[in-house]
Amino acid sequence: MSAPTKPAPAAALLADLRAALPAGLVLDDEETVLAHREDAAPFGEAGRAAAVVSPTTVEQVQAVVRACAAHRVPIVPQGSRTGLAGGGNAIEGGVVLSLLKMDRVLEIDKANRLVRCEPGVRTAELAKAVAEQGLFYPPDPASWETCTIGGNIATGAGGLCCVKYGVTADYVMGLSVVLADGELVKVGRRTVKCVAGYDLTHLFVGSEGTLGVIVEATLALRPPHGEALALLATFPSATAAGAAVGGITEAGHTPSALELLDRRTSEAIAELGHPLLPPGAAATLIVASDAPDAAARIKEMAALCEQAGALAATAAENAEQAHEILEARRLVLPALTEQAKKMPGEIASFVEDVAVPRAQLAVLIDRIDDIAEQYGLYVSTIGHAGDGNLHPSVIFDKTDPDAMRRAREAYDAIMAAALELGGTITGEHGVGTLKREWLARELEPRELRLQQDVKRALDPEGLFNPGKVLAA
Amino acid sequence: MSAPTKPAPAAALLADLRAALPAGLVLDDEETVLAHREDAAPFGEAGRAAAVVSPTTVEQVQAVVRACAAHRVPIVPQGSRTGLAGGGNAIEGGVVLSLLKMDRVLEIDKANRLVRCEPGVRTAELAKAVAEQGLFYPPDPASWETCTIGGNIATGAGGLCCVKYGVTADYVMGLSVVLADGELVKVGRRTVKCVAGYDLTHLFVGSEGTLGVIVEATLALRPPHGEALALLATFPSATAAGAAVGGITEAGHTPSALELLDRRTSEAIAELGHPLLPPGAAATLIVASDAPDAAARIKEMAALCEQAGALAATAAENAEQAHEILEARRLVLPALTEQAKKMPGEIASFVEDVAVPRAQLAVLIDRIDDIAEQYGLYVSTIGHAGDGNLHPSVIFDKTDPDAMRRAREAYDAIMAAALELGGTITGEHGVGTLKREWLARELEPRELRLQQDVKRALDPEGLFNPGKVLAA
Repeated sequence: MSAPTKPAPAAALLADLRAALPAGLVLDDEETVLAHREDAAPFGEAGRAAAVVSPTTVEQVQAVVRACAAHRVPIVPQGSRTGLAGGGNAIEGGVVLSLLKMDRVLEIDKANRLVRCEPGVRTAELAKAVAEQGLFYPPDPASWETCTIGGNIATGAGGLCCVKYGVTADYVMGLSVVLADGELVKVGRRTVKCVAGYDLTHLFVGSEGTLGVIVEATLALRPPHGEALALLATFPSATAAGAAVGGITEAGHTPSALELLDRRTSEAIAELGHPLLPPGAAATLIVASDAPDAAARIKEMAALCEQAGALAATAAENAEQAHEILEARRLVLPALTEQAKKMPGEIASFVEDVAVPRAQLAVLIDRIDDIAEQYGLYVSTIGHAGDGNLHPSVIFDKTDPDAMRRAREAYDAIMAAALELGGTITGEHGVGTLKREWLARELEPRELRLQQDVKRALDPEGLFNPGKVLAA
Repeated sequence: MSAPTKPAPAAALLADLRAALPAGLVLDDEETVLAHREDAAPFGEAGRAAAVVSPTTVEQVQAVVRACAAHRVPIVPQGSRTGLAGGGNAIEGGVVLSLLKMDRVLEIDKANRLVRCEPGVRTAELAKAVAEQGLFYPPDPASWETCTIGGNIATGAGGLCCVKYGVTADYVMGLSVVLADGELVKVGRRTVKCVAGYDLTHLFVGSEGTLGVIVEATLALRPPHGEALALLATFPSATAAGAAVGGITEAGHTPSALELLDRRTSEAIAELGHPLLPPGAAATLIVASDAPDAAARIKEMAALCEQAGALAATAAENAEQAHEILEARRLVLPALTEQAKKMPGEIASFVEDVAVPRAQLAVLIDRIDDIAEQYGLYVSTIGHAGDGNLHPSVIFDKTDPDAMRRAREAYDAIMAAALELGGTITGEHGVGTLKREWLARELEPRELRLQQDVKRALDPEGLFNPGKVLAA
């Protein structure tokens, strides 16, 4: 039901959209519109969409883009709204273009180790489909059961195994994209190598829906990896854990996961009674290897942890022990949920996503500790240590305006610290609306202008997701 | 000495360049200008430059760009002219901007596994410098002793070990680039992950000097690899060799080299008396592995070659045997030189660079054989088989106009065949002037327009290398 007070352009747009798409694919009822308002980011800068459209074909996407262009109504491409920067948030009076109904795996090409799929397929489903053919799609964002390949590409998503296997961008070979004039382009390739013209494929990767609508992707695959072994080491300080990460890297190891838990996270998991996490550790490292010589590698890395001053380092000798170690990483969310239950008020959390050169990891962790103390907040940090990528969670009572203010200031202070250490405001979550102002601090003015020039070249009227990544 | 007949604008430009740069860095004598006229591509579409400038600092590059912009004189950035597509060829009346004097390795950061360098450093020198610190820079174009990192980035160069380690683009983390307005931008990052804004870094990679002048690069490094073992297998047909490549890939191996020699190349090396290459093979595969379990891998891959119908498959059991096998690959150029000596006239060769989806490899080899026969030419093909990337060399008498015409037509026919098989006109050499018309055949019209939009956004006046990659 469209609201009676809706301005005329929206009604005309809706009529055009309904004429172009089959019945039921254009919705503007309150419930649907509100359900598609926000992704999973905090501080929601979001508006009420005029409609949510869910095309099932490329031609329908083109029709939607043409109708919106004709009415000068902005389009927000949207997946499953697991994004953490507001990139998928609706825009007031705009159209939410949900890609969730375009969720087919179109082709698995075993000989060429690639998969072709629509944007709405869930990451875990894609990984499962290719695994059934004996292949491996590595990128594993935390939300991989829910998030979509289109969203992963749009945000340039990472995950745990990036430290060995790289990020989503490293797997995107080609894309089909609907441009602002409604035309379809196929960029990229099916060959392993190609240098024919500018690399437009990677311009779309991480562009958060601001340059076009991704309607198909060709992704590279890998051979399956071996059974992973793992080790868990506890440390008396973040500095010692950082030294262990440095030692592992410098010794030339390529672990398939190299995860760090700070003091608060280690304590929270210890409280759940994990046998390998006694109370008192200031930092924990969980390291996995799926190399052919994993057992030897794990032993060597455990020794390097001890050399760096570990309180204890336990190396798994079989799959069962490895499972117990990796379980500690999986307990992060339940453990923090338990902690939150002890706090007063209505608990909310902001997950940060800063990255620094690997060698600055321990310094950043200490800075985050200082920030938590300064603002009187509970901040627990986990991180993809091998990538220098940290996710501090600021946990606070959202009914307390002062706590909200402090949480927000702490969030900013963490980004400032990352930039100061030669890092970035976002390693794998994206800019969206949340970090738009911060992007202008990370990039020098000339680069920011260059980014805007590129946006204008591809989307001169600002049709696609205006105000995301860059100011509208 | 400037030629007396040179038009006035060139004189004014030269005066400005000489005012901006130290003495001796701006040359316009006949010898220097002619020496910088062409890269290593055949069919040279090249002009006579007004001057060759060789700045030693970023500020000098900026001064050159500003002077040329003021005089509306095009700039051709140039490295060591080993390019194979004419991207580095001089433009009539333009300025050649040689980066060879900016050849410093600025920083090797072991903890963060990265190197920062100027564009003029030779690839082999960079690889050596990082190896001395226990690190590994994989990209290994054939010309790596001579070619520069700047040229590698500009062309998106590949090499032998790409099949396991990826191409130059995969190692570029950040760039400093002088833009058309003379301003310097730093794009990219020093962190392993970063999704802050559009990926402009990879827009410059492979842009062949048409979007800006790369004055610094930050490159990712790897831990050193193990000692490589190798196998050599001969086959009764290209199809059988192609089946072996497919079998190796499907079984999940990641060899560090997977090179194919066609019948003519195999015969030429056999004639030099290589013990593992008896006459009569229609195709040869040379496979290397530097995995921790290389010995087992090599044995398994040798067995897969036999299953695919190999005439013989010899697996090295030690470094010495591996060296003998890899020597066969190194003998390609000497062997073909010997063959050329037997031919009448003045011999020239065109090296092609097509790539197809891996599974189409054998089909493409057979097509190339047909093309050679059809045009009555000697064509020998080697290829990075694991990447589906082939380099057929068309060898002919350049004093014979008819042979020249046939060679040119065969060159075109090979590209047409690659496109027909779902491939690309260039896997790792680039477009330059040589394949500019062919790029327009590979890309659909809308993508070509998009490429032109990007060029215009970054270089609105067409200052940088006009007519390369895209029509001016």
